[in-house]
Amino acid sequence: MPWLDDVRWNERGLVPAIAQDAATLRVLTLAWMNREALERTVATGEAHYWSRSRGALWHKGESSGHVQRVREIRLDCDNDAILLVVEQEGGISCHTGRERCFHQRLEHGAWHDVEPVLKDPKAIYGDG
Amino acid sequence: MPWLDDVRWNERGLVPAIAQDAATLRVLTLAWMNREALERTVATGEAHYWSRSRGALWHKGESSGHVQRVREIRLDCDNDAILLVVEQEGGISCHTGRERCFHQRLEHGAWHDVEPVLKDPKAIYGDG
Repeated sequence: MPWLDDVRWNERGLVPAIAQDAATLRVLTLAWMNREALERTVATGEAHYWSRSRGALWHKGESSGHVQRVREIRLDCDNDAILLVVEQEGGISCHTGRERCFHQRLEHGAWHDVEPVLKDPKAIYGDG
Repeated sequence: MPWLDDVRWNERGLVPAIAQDAATLRVLTLAWMNREALERTVATGEAHYWSRSRGALWHKGESSGHVQRVREIRLDCDNDAILLVVEQEGGISCHTGRERCFHQRLEHGAWHDVEPVLKDPKAIYGDG
């Protein structure tokens, strides 16, 4: 499909994909997509990524239920970064149980955790 | 500096850095930082990146005047992505003269340009 060929995939076949909350406009996550992940995202309307740690396609929310319903997909001027505008199911995008992954803020020369844990990860993913 | 060591730089010594407008909350750009770029960003209060195409440190706005004054710096849960909340000088972050780099939207199987050019790049950078 031409729109998939328009994307400048890196040497590993990936591009970074930002997810932004459609309602609050907060930046939730930065993850990675390969062609299949972007194709599946468009086909299903829910964010799919490539998990670099697991080396596998990853339907966001498949374990937690915290799917991201995609309202808009954008590509940047260099065709090498994606922006998803999403409705975040459960209001939790981070595997730590926080609203979003960007929960550390630089203050006085150190990273400080500034976002509350909304739900215990054990309650999200089970205990083991 | 420990806060620089906390960042998980990739095999090329880089991390992706998102810039978000502090006023509108729009996602403006995705660029890359190395240690020096992040250190200079913190020291000067203006966004510095690593230009992968030029292989050089890049003070955003050095040619265009469109500097990004940094209000907040965040790190994600995996320590491998940065979020800058910025005041965008001139209201233009993209080298194409648009407000932001994410100016292409996927609609009906094609990328469509949905953001106006606010200023001719020739007027920003000179005629060449």
